[in-house]
Amino acid sequence: MAQAAPRPSSPPPPPAPAPTSGALLGTLGGVCRDRGLGELASRLLELDAWVRAELREFEHELRTVPDGARAVQRAAHHLLDLGGKHLRPMCVVLASKVGGGFGPDARQLALAVELVHTATLLHDDVVDVADARRGQATARTLWGNAASIFAGDWLLVEALRRIRGAGDLALLDRMLAIIEEMILAESLQLERRGKITGEVADYFRVCEGKTAALFRWAMLAGARAGGCAPEHAAALERFGHELGVAFQVIDDCLDFEGDFAVTGKALFADLREGKLTYPLLVALDRDPAIEGAVAALLAEDAELGAASPARCAEVAAALRGTGALAEARRLATARIAAGIAALAPLPDGPAKAALITVAEATALREK
Amino acid sequence: MAQAAPRPSSPPPPPAPAPTSGALLGTLGGVCRDRGLGELASRLLELDAWVRAELREFEHELRTVPDGARAVQRAAHHLLDLGGKHLRPMCVVLASKVGGGFGPDARQLALAVELVHTATLLHDDVVDVADARRGQATARTLWGNAASIFAGDWLLVEALRRIRGAGDLALLDRMLAIIEEMILAESLQLERRGKITGEVADYFRVCEGKTAALFRWAMLAGARAGGCAPEHAAALERFGHELGVAFQVIDDCLDFEGDFAVTGKALFADLREGKLTYPLLVALDRDPAIEGAVAALLAEDAELGAASPARCAEVAAALRGTGALAEARRLATARIAAGIAALAPLPDGPAKAALITVAEATALREK
Repeated sequence: MAQAAPRPSSPPPPPAPAPTSGALLGTLGGVCRDRGLGELASRLLELDAWVRAELREFEHELRTVPDGARAVQRAAHHLLDLGGKHLRPMCVVLASKVGGGFGPDARQLALAVELVHTATLLHDDVVDVADARRGQATARTLWGNAASIFAGDWLLVEALRRIRGAGDLALLDRMLAIIEEMILAESLQLERRGKITGEVADYFRVCEGKTAALFRWAMLAGARAGGCAPEHAAALERFGHELGVAFQVIDDCLDFEGDFAVTGKALFADLREGKLTYPLLVALDRDPAIEGAVAALLAEDAELGAASPARCAEVAAALRGTGALAEARRLATARIAAGIAALAPLPDGPAKAALITVAEATALREK
Repeated sequence: MAQAAPRPSSPPPPPAPAPTSGALLGTLGGVCRDRGLGELASRLLELDAWVRAELREFEHELRTVPDGARAVQRAAHHLLDLGGKHLRPMCVVLASKVGGGFGPDARQLALAVELVHTATLLHDDVVDVADARRGQATARTLWGNAASIFAGDWLLVEALRRIRGAGDLALLDRMLAIIEEMILAESLQLERRGKITGEVADYFRVCEGKTAALFRWAMLAGARAGGCAPEHAAALERFGHELGVAFQVIDDCLDFEGDFAVTGKALFADLREGKLTYPLLVALDRDPAIEGAVAALLAEDAELGAASPARCAEVAAALRGTGALAEARRLATARIAAGIAALAPLPDGPAKAALITVAEATALREK
């Protein structure tokens, strides 16, 4: 029969590792120790203990996402069950603990933000024709592109139902606005695909829409569910925004210097997918000749299926030579400092300290 | 640059025909006259006059969908601006007029149901790799698959915001449930793609989820916005369900006997896309040998790009020979009768008469 679109097959279910909410904190702790940042490492350990119960509650909520026999449901669960860093739910947890704590509504909101995030990954992997995610085959390679797209839509609907169930309609309205913002950022990224160079303003528009918006919402959601004062909620939102931008800029750096065994993503994946990344923008600004080296890598990629290790090393060295990666990490550090400064209105206490710890550790993350 | 996913290009904007809310009624009127159904034809003319003002209001609302420079927005507007039958908004109009009439909230809900419908078309055209829709190039051929998918998502979000704005949260909850139902039906359809034969139960599950669910919602939305009594709203929902099933079964028939100049869709499109249709199910049940003729058509399609006219005529004749098309139209007529019967609790009056007219005309539609 005519078979134009990918057909959902029925592969054997992949092994489902336990959710890994705590993994990020553990990894970050190790990084800190390796870098002689023992004080931050011990703060991370404290943080880990301080949010462990809430993250377990979140993981329990994650298991309430309905199962089902349909390909879209299996595709969605494939990615959900692989765990992930659960950083956005952790944002909800921490913001809620600035106020009255992580109650049943906050739990629904933490789940919702993770579902929206997962939905965007399912869609991104189709758009980027990606084969691996979290070190495993992508849902689209197992169930087809169409199932992966509808799986994303299904998770979005489930997320909106959870937010609706939590009863704070302002958060529902904000999430609808943020999903629109994410779609428009995705569109801008699509439109400028295939161009190596780009505008810094476009970069930040994509970064804020695709990444920071959801961190902002996570902070707002936690704050409102925890009953925070409006000025504290606003401060937390600002913090989420800065944290999100920093998180994305570090993500961009990992595209050039990350380790597949840690990140689960191939090196230069963003570059190959034609995504504007901050280090590349800086490098091109500092040394326009880099455009030629990048073009040569992409040409080899297109011709041979994969650029030679020598070519990859050449681009990585050229990029490092401009100091662009160091500059990107400096920018991330500055945005994190701005985020921490935004927390000034919050009362001192373990919640504020935990937010600062997460922010400082984000600049050091390697996955 | 590596270019794995389709890139949104910037084609010249296509001509934007005026919305065609009235076109369905006009076409149906012509069909009735041609078939000597003068009484139904004149009822359709009355109906046209009776809802014209409300349909104009709906069209005005349609123009309030935000414009924008992004590819997703242009892809969405490309399809929206092509008009369409606007049958679902008309359902909202008619149901609202069973109650207190088509006010501002009903207008938002009529827009929402059309946006959700348009979103599913944008997604379907990607899944089906379709090139033509409403007689024009599909959005995906102009702006790429990714932009077409995100355009659908964007319209879904816009629809949910409109429903939220209308203030009846029960309708928001129902729409979220219905979008989920549509996704699961889409998934079932995907899973059984590539199989010529199938279960009647699966067919109705897909038909009810993909088509009838939205008609049901349109009727409920109009009823609630018009302030109908709960038992009247329930009757209208039941009517919407039956109308939706009948509408889909007729749509299936048009795949075998439609005229591209009228439908804007190529003949055998559903067949080629591997979709289970009711006439084919009936035909296969009555004459299993048809499976061979269909397989030969699809093989020619795959080999030559398009099956020969002789082969197409052979399949059409074989199908007609079993009486399957007549049986499918009989089923549609029976479902319409059931829908009309469901309207019994409604008071007699122009609204009820108009609903009956729409239902009766639906069985005769040729587009």
